[in-house]
Amino acid sequence: MTHSDRILMGPGPCNPYPEVIEAFSRPVLGHLDPEFIPLLDETGQRLRQAFSTTNPLTFPVSGTGSAGMEAAFVNFIEPGDTVVVGVNGVFGGRMCDVAARSGAEVVRVDAPWGTAIDPEQLLDAHPDPKIIAVVHAETSTGVRNDIAQLGAAKGDALLLIDCVTSLGGIPVELDEWNVDIAYSGTQKCLGVPPGLAPLSVSATGVERIVERPQSWYLDLNMIAKYVTGGSARAYHHTAPISMIYALHAGLGVLLDEGLEASFDRHRSAGEALQRGLVDMGFELFAQEGHRLPELTTVVVPADRLPSGLDEAGVRRRLLDDYGIEIGGGLGEFAGKVWRIGLMGHTARQRNVTLLLGALTEIMATPA
Amino acid sequence: MTHSDRILMGPGPCNPYPEVIEAFSRPVLGHLDPEFIPLLDETGQRLRQAFSTTNPLTFPVSGTGSAGMEAAFVNFIEPGDTVVVGVNGVFGGRMCDVAARSGAEVVRVDAPWGTAIDPEQLLDAHPDPKIIAVVHAETSTGVRNDIAQLGAAKGDALLLIDCVTSLGGIPVELDEWNVDIAYSGTQKCLGVPPGLAPLSVSATGVERIVERPQSWYLDLNMIAKYVTGGSARAYHHTAPISMIYALHAGLGVLLDEGLEASFDRHRSAGEALQRGLVDMGFELFAQEGHRLPELTTVVVPADRLPSGLDEAGVRRRLLDDYGIEIGGGLGEFAGKVWRIGLMGHTARQRNVTLLLGALTEIMATPA
Repeated sequence: MTHSDRILMGPGPCNPYPEVIEAFSRPVLGHLDPEFIPLLDETGQRLRQAFSTTNPLTFPVSGTGSAGMEAAFVNFIEPGDTVVVGVNGVFGGRMCDVAARSGAEVVRVDAPWGTAIDPEQLLDAHPDPKIIAVVHAETSTGVRNDIAQLGAAKGDALLLIDCVTSLGGIPVELDEWNVDIAYSGTQKCLGVPPGLAPLSVSATGVERIVERPQSWYLDLNMIAKYVTGGSARAYHHTAPISMIYALHAGLGVLLDEGLEASFDRHRSAGEALQRGLVDMGFELFAQEGHRLPELTTVVVPADRLPSGLDEAGVRRRLLDDYGIEIGGGLGEFAGKVWRIGLMGHTARQRNVTLLLGALTEIMATPA
Repeated sequence: MTHSDRILMGPGPCNPYPEVIEAFSRPVLGHLDPEFIPLLDETGQRLRQAFSTTNPLTFPVSGTGSAGMEAAFVNFIEPGDTVVVGVNGVFGGRMCDVAARSGAEVVRVDAPWGTAIDPEQLLDAHPDPKIIAVVHAETSTGVRNDIAQLGAAKGDALLLIDCVTSLGGIPVELDEWNVDIAYSGTQKCLGVPPGLAPLSVSATGVERIVERPQSWYLDLNMIAKYVTGGSARAYHHTAPISMIYALHAGLGVLLDEGLEASFDRHRSAGEALQRGLVDMGFELFAQEGHRLPELTTVVVPADRLPSGLDEAGVRRRLLDDYGIEIGGGLGEFAGKVWRIGLMGHTARQRNVTLLLGALTEIMATPA
């Protein structure tokens, strides 16, 4: 089997930091080993820094980002609870599905894909929801939704946000924004392969964890006894040891660089890409002022594609001739947009230069 | 932070095969990359060989063994369904909890910890259960439960088995035993770090997957479109790429050695350990004839411990002075038994020799 070395400029995974891959080679320790517990604790501490929070219950869920989403809903919903969900892309839609399966009455607030959700509409959608949920960075559209206003005016509701594509790439301020429940994924701006879902729950959130969530695997009552158990750690499930090494190392790279420096790097790379695409005559898809630097969506120039190449053909040529992965559109935008990620280790000017050069060459292919 | 190189002789994780750690260094590919899909497919094919099945729906769940357990129940239960569960240890008890949270009426068949469950009792427990569930290799007690007789007489019920500690270490014959749903973990006899849960579902099982399981993350209807989707793979959640490399490599080591050879190696190591412990005057905990070679439980010789050392002290000395991890007891057997694993890469005579030598030295410590 061939196994190529790609430049991962899709919507995730990104290329991992070299230090992350090195961490995989560390000897496996048991999940109760006195040397593993401090490493797990330090991972939690590093996540707190990344999330800008002091929440004690901050740890990596043992699954990919969608497991984080499920943990974020299933632990807080009892049948019939009202959950307001903002939907302006695939992941907002997924939230509705996950919340409904947990027994929630979902009040859905839609905004057109490519635009941001108006916080006022979310706040006005229901007089007394248990949860208001929204995606911070919509991976399907490249749009950033505003969070701070929600936290300031949420009243008694819990504020739940999806930070899968934002954490490490743009500011995430859980405490300042008054967020109660947040989850992320490792394979985006943290520069780690997929496999874990960082989760953080505020003190108010912890008080409202239901007694017996329908998921055993994601039950925060039990998991908390392991991840925040002090000197007495109660075994719940076997932690994914090597993935935790990888996350620990990725967070180390992020914090050594500094959060602000990482945001700057993502911003300058994203802006350079977006400028370059516009200069090439492409149309950006996401609403100006709410564009994510780490994930750029661009309208496929259907009438300018080289003869014989459809949009998938362009992506395939990037992959085959240049070893570059970019993503296609999702849902109704399949075939209509490209999604170009600059996340984690991938968020560098050299990758912008490379992609713009490769796209220019492909677009100039003679018919 | 110190990070030692342990000999992992607890109940899991085991030491990974060196080839597995090498696999972690492979470049990350996207989950829809045309080079990743064949690797995922081959992982499924290798799992079929390990499980001795032709079940098309055979793949690694994106979570640790307990996520496999949850997937095994949550996809097949509708509220009020009857599930018969055999319980002779922690993991049978966990099955009851998981099944009940999925809405099942659980009929529990208990056997004393350390003994095997009588298949007749499971078959007689209810006239028409939807599922009969039992743990093949109880990690908490070191006992093997018989499966074949259940498959032969299960009638219309689905037979669900936990193979977390059996797969790769002792024969697992899904097709021959007429098993419908089986799950495992990577960190036991497969010689891979924890993080994935191999799962296999029979054709009959696939027909009975409920339309909308309460878990979105573990919904087999949607996951099947990704893992067995032929040329059109529908994205569900981002697969844990690097962990799949690791599993793929571990299964490669297992199949290169040969299943029978692996079983022989586990058997001879386990028998040597058990013989050695008896020769030292220790009492084995698990019922003779149902002892797992890969996980030995031994009664802590409370009256023969060196002065000043309790059972945890002995384990701590093994860890600190020899770098060897063994496990303590669970539940009511906490402090009363040790659990010694010889799984995957760890299942070798040299580790038996080492542990017996270390235990002999510790037990001879002057008061």
